[in-house]
Amino acid sequence: MISLKKRSLISITDFNTEEYLHILSMAKDFEKTPIQNIAEGRVIATLFFEPSTRTRLSFESAANKLGAKIIGFADVNNSSATKGESLSDTIKTVANYADLIIMRHSLEGASRWASEVADIPVINAGDGSNQHPTQCLLDLYSIKKTQKTLDNLHVAMVGDLKYGRTVHSLVEAMCNFNTTFHLVSPESLKLPSAVKILIKERKLTYFQYTEMQEALDKADIVYMTRVQRERFVDIQDYERVKNAYLLDKSMLNNVKENMKILHPLPRVNEINKDVDNTTHAYYFQQALNGVYVRQALIASILGLK
Amino acid sequence: MISLKKRSLISITDFNTEEYLHILSMAKDFEKTPIQNIAEGRVIATLFFEPSTRTRLSFESAANKLGAKIIGFADVNNSSATKGESLSDTIKTVANYADLIIMRHSLEGASRWASEVADIPVINAGDGSNQHPTQCLLDLYSIKKTQKTLDNLHVAMVGDLKYGRTVHSLVEAMCNFNTTFHLVSPESLKLPSAVKILIKERKLTYFQYTEMQEALDKADIVYMTRVQRERFVDIQDYERVKNAYLLDKSMLNNVKENMKILHPLPRVNEINKDVDNTTHAYYFQQALNGVYVRQALIASILGLK
Amino acid sequence: MISLKKRSLISITDFNTEEYLHILSMAKDFEKTPIQNIAEGRVIATLFFEPSTRTRLSFESAANKLGAKIIGFADVNNSSATKGESLSDTIKTVANYADLIIMRHSLEGASRWASEVADIPVINAGDGSNQHPTQCLLDLYSIKKTQKTLDNLHVAMVGDLKYGRTVHSLVEAMCNFNTTFHLVSPESLKLPSAVKILIKERKLTYFQYTEMQEALDKADIVYMTRVQRERFVDIQDYERVKNAYLLDKSMLNNVKENMKILHPLPRVNEINKDVDNTTHAYYFQQALNGVYVRQALIASILGLK
Repeated sequence: MISLKKRSLISITDFNTEEYLHILSMAKDFEKTPIQNIAEGRVIATLFFEPSTRTRLSFESAANKLGAKIIGFADVNNSSATKGESLSDTIKTVANYADLIIMRHSLEGASRWASEVADIPVINAGDGSNQHPTQCLLDLYSIKKTQKTLDNLHVAMVGDLKYGRTVHSLVEAMCNFNTTFHLVSPESLKLPSAVKILIKERKLTYFQYTEMQEALDKADIVYMTRVQRERFVDIQDYERVKNAYLLDKSMLNNVKENMKILHPLPRVNEINKDVDNTTHAYYFQQALNGVYVRQALIASILGLK
Repeated sequence: MISLKKRSLISITDFNTEEYLHILSMAKDFEKTPIQNIAEGRVIATLFFEPSTRTRLSFESAANKLGAKIIGFADVNNSSATKGESLSDTIKTVANYADLIIMRHSLEGASRWASEVADIPVINAGDGSNQHPTQCLLDLYSIKKTQKTLDNLHVAMVGDLKYGRTVHSLVEAMCNFNTTFHLVSPESLKLPSAVKILIKERKLTYFQYTEMQEALDKADIVYMTRVQRERFVDIQDYERVKNAYLLDKSMLNNVKENMKILHPLPRVNEINKDVDNTTHAYYFQQALNGVYVRQALIASILGLK
Repeated sequence: MISLKKRSLISITDFNTEEYLHILSMAKDFEKTPIQNIAEGRVIATLFFEPSTRTRLSFESAANKLGAKIIGFADVNNSSATKGESLSDTIKTVANYADLIIMRHSLEGASRWASEVADIPVINAGDGSNQHPTQCLLDLYSIKKTQKTLDNLHVAMVGDLKYGRTVHSLVEAMCNFNTTFHLVSPESLKLPSAVKILIKERKLTYFQYTEMQEALDKADIVYMTRVQRERFVDIQDYERVKNAYLLDKSMLNNVKENMKILHPLPRVNEINKDVDNTTHAYYFQQALNGVYVRQALIASILGLK
């Protein structure tokens, strides 16, 4: 019997494969019956030291559908942090007011630190460029839902593979399912060696590309991310490559019928709007899946299921 | 049988007369029994891209009294819009998290656009200087409640009749009820021709004034608005007329016994505080009526009644 | 039979001793059974014209555990106050949307003024450096809970005794219980004469110190506050005394076994973290007590118990 009661989730590796598959399976149940008033009387604190409307609203929608109550802040400017209080004091105090903390912070490691000082569980909703484990869970859910399996898939990752935390977590998680990876990025933004080693250790295959089309045609899942100008030391390098990572409808002529395009959102221009109405676009439904996954996670950690 | 289920309300003209009278009639029921736990499990997103505390709190009070849960933001600075995401992506994503969007935006047309991309209904809580239909509904409710009818009334509109969106909507709506209009404004802020034409088409009567007293004495309803300095090209014009649009108690000696003064609030100084304790002041009760009207509207659109 | 229904609480002196002891006694009940869904359908407005995350979250946690719904704002920048509306108009309008207002404001007297214009009760959550009565209630609750009585205690107050509003309120309240006061502060930040007169009128004893140790050793309760640099006209005065008001573990060798250290929080560095794990540290539990006390207060004022 799997129980995640009182467990914190800071990095996707805090849960083993069996545990996160359990969350995905519970999420399926919430997709069927989204409103389940099982968290009545529970208080959840959403502490967004850095604003992130989409993530916050998704968590708050999930908490509300469970019947929980929410306290918190959307922005550090409204918080006592401006009075010079230490993060650990803030967390210890809020731990008195709530049953669960969901937090986002601009500093790497802040959520881990919070989980160590709080005597209630903490869910990491993003700490700097480090971890965002619920994004990974909803990505996995979206892959499983659209492909009916997680096993033996061809997954293309496109864009900034060096700094994108969601990419690293997803590669790591998919390594458990005999995935073949198609890695498309500029030379300077390739997947870090440390992550490639994980793929090799599992004796899985990966291919690297600097252009998109071949990977698109082979993939069951295309995971798009943004290539940001700020990542390039030399602006000329950016200008030279940027157009290679813009996906439009004309590139979808020879893709697999059930290929689905994911994106952690927000997008800027890396997916053209003419893709939105194709059967391959899945990024908005992916966001909806996030609500079910977060319902499952909150319910598990509060010991409600 | 009138049903407004899944309908958006962006402009007051989106509802026909029968439909908005239906809302007023439902609102009366909520005035009698404000707490009706009929929206349990429903999630409402209040997206205020531009802050407006009074309108937001009124909607949130209404939603809470129905038992709905609320997610959202009070200010665009806390939203993902700062990451350069398009409005339509934001709306499409939030539509996954909620059953109804209530939005305010500084740009004209933003709410209409949102209602076209969202697959859930949208209520416009103000888009720039364009539309604010729930203000119009609560104005109508306040008129009907105090005068026991909407028909055959004398309505004075005072102040900035050129730019005030609430004035235009109210004139338009009252044209359906054989109203006589008394329009009091500076020369440069007269009611636009396009709105006067509506009055004429219905073969109704209007009078124009640059001073207030005569209109006050004839009116059943006096609708006050602010004359803002910024509306005048020539500051001397403003200085010359500004005192003509300040209402104080001494001007109420010969008004009708049941005359009621409305104001969309916030007021600055256009109604002197010595009016507040007269039987004619109705602007705070008017604000309270807004909660009942919004309860009725939300309940209708969610198909709960 | 004590009833606080519809009463406002602006200053601790608004309640007599019997009344606030009644709140403490109710709070004990909420400590045993924190979740009591007795405020269903009630709407509470939390109006924070000045941000104070910890106080706001404590009140919102309390309101949520009672089953009430919350509307409001965390920061004046998101409020209509920016449109030049008067405070009394804001309060009168919000009074239409809620059953109770909890407000914090940077100006002394703002909460009292609000309670006079609103036709619903108001709880002061801090008005400038003036009053913060619920802090006082939770301080009293923490003292009573840890010492099993409020009577005949030795209470040390350390730090800024001149400007600290929580200190003044607590001295005033403890004057009813035959307290001996140990007052530790820099010369320039001594307890004001007006407060010392209250002690003398009750024929109670106080001792004044500029160093901490002796007071620590005699005290049942040590109430720490911060000595802020801004309070000193001459920065050299500050530099000379500042280290005398920093409490660390080495100073706890000869204190009473059941001595407890309180702090209104947030602390900056006036209590060293090595104190946190001693049995004397009580400041985080003190914060938790604040939730029970606020539940009791809200329930009383709404007439729910």
